[in-house]
Amino acid sequence: MIIVGASGTMGRHLTSAFEKEHEVITAASKGCAIQVDITSAESIENMYKQVGAFDALISTAGPTFVGPWKKLTDKEFRRGVEGKMMGQINLVLIGQHYINPKGSFTLITGALSHDPQKNFANASAANGAVEGFVRAAAIELENGIRINAVSPTVIENSPQYFPFFPGDIPVTMQQLEYGFRKAVFGANTGQVIKP
Amino acid sequence: MIIVGASGTMGRHLTSAFEKEHEVITAASKGCAIQVDITSAESIENMYKQVGAFDALISTAGPTFVGPWKKLTDKEFRRGVEGKMMGQINLVLIGQHYINPKGSFTLITGALSHDPQKNFANASAANGAVEGFVRAAAIELENGIRINAVSPTVIENSPQYFPFFPGDIPVTMQQLEYGFRKAVFGANTGQVIKP
Repeated sequence: MIIVGASGTMGRHLTSAFEKEHEVITAASKGCAIQVDITSAESIENMYKQVGAFDALISTAGPTFVGPWKKLTDKEFRRGVEGKMMGQINLVLIGQHYINPKGSFTLITGALSHDPQKNFANASAANGAVEGFVRAAAIELENGIRINAVSPTVIENSPQYFPFFPGDIPVTMQQLEYGFRKAVFGANTGQVIKP
Repeated sequence: MIIVGASGTMGRHLTSAFEKEHEVITAASKGCAIQVDITSAESIENMYKQVGAFDALISTAGPTFVGPWKKLTDKEFRRGVEGKMMGQINLVLIGQHYINPKGSFTLITGALSHDPQKNFANASAANGAVEGFVRAAAIELENGIRINAVSPTVIENSPQYFPFFPGDIPVTMQQLEYGFRKAVFGANTGQVIKP
């Protein structure tokens, strides 16, 4: 199992949870076994070449622009386009050539796709793109390969974001983990799982 | 009212329908009153500078990559990212500085965001991105400015696509027009309207 974004809040928890039962290869822009820049297709290809065949890819890597609407132009929007959107889409488009039959891809999206909050329009678009892609890829991938997204609202370990999500009950790290468990070890495909 | 994509199948019908009642300014990459390349923020800015203040923008401009999954790489994916996704998002991010108070933006998405078909993963992602953006922009835009998306399945005037949409009852041009009427002349915002 490859976990991309393994140095982040979510990635560290999932690594700790899954490495008790599975071989986990951690990847991130820095601080992990494999160094990968998901905004570069070449870097993604290099990651897969280093790892070779694998059964599951989990991504928790989702850079987006967070900030006032008035500062949001094409330039800022590219952060989410290249990061959370195309970064994750390229993990699948490239990774499908390395993953084992019956393997799975699990990407991260977020409630913002359907439940927007101020300052997060870039994430709403990136999440919506990844969710649309997940549903489409599910009917295209062959050899029993599955793909799903996990879509949390704000998570309990990121209290700095609580003020931006009024009334949203934070998702616990355990709920988040169970969302990924459902995606990786269940049999569904093309689903957006709300942990 | 500005109609971007006015030279296309949908744009021609909407122009013909709305110009009976409203002043319509047509825009497209070629063959219309205003020439605009929606993949260029500079070209979009130039369009708005030429038009000046306006009450409604309709976009039916949605280039995406249509083709076999096996040919879909980062390169092909950019067609939908720059076209249907960022093209339409930039029409709003830039156009908000030119639109009149209580004006409206109406973008085009499509059923593929939630109901994928083979060969159209790029459109599924672009549609999902625009729908997420529309919901987010609706809570950010000021001065009573509204934004909605119209999301048809295959349309009756594009029979070349029928084989790709098995079982989908084609949307008539009149149904499509009514979807846009609801978006432009109704009072809702942040909605994805299925004509």
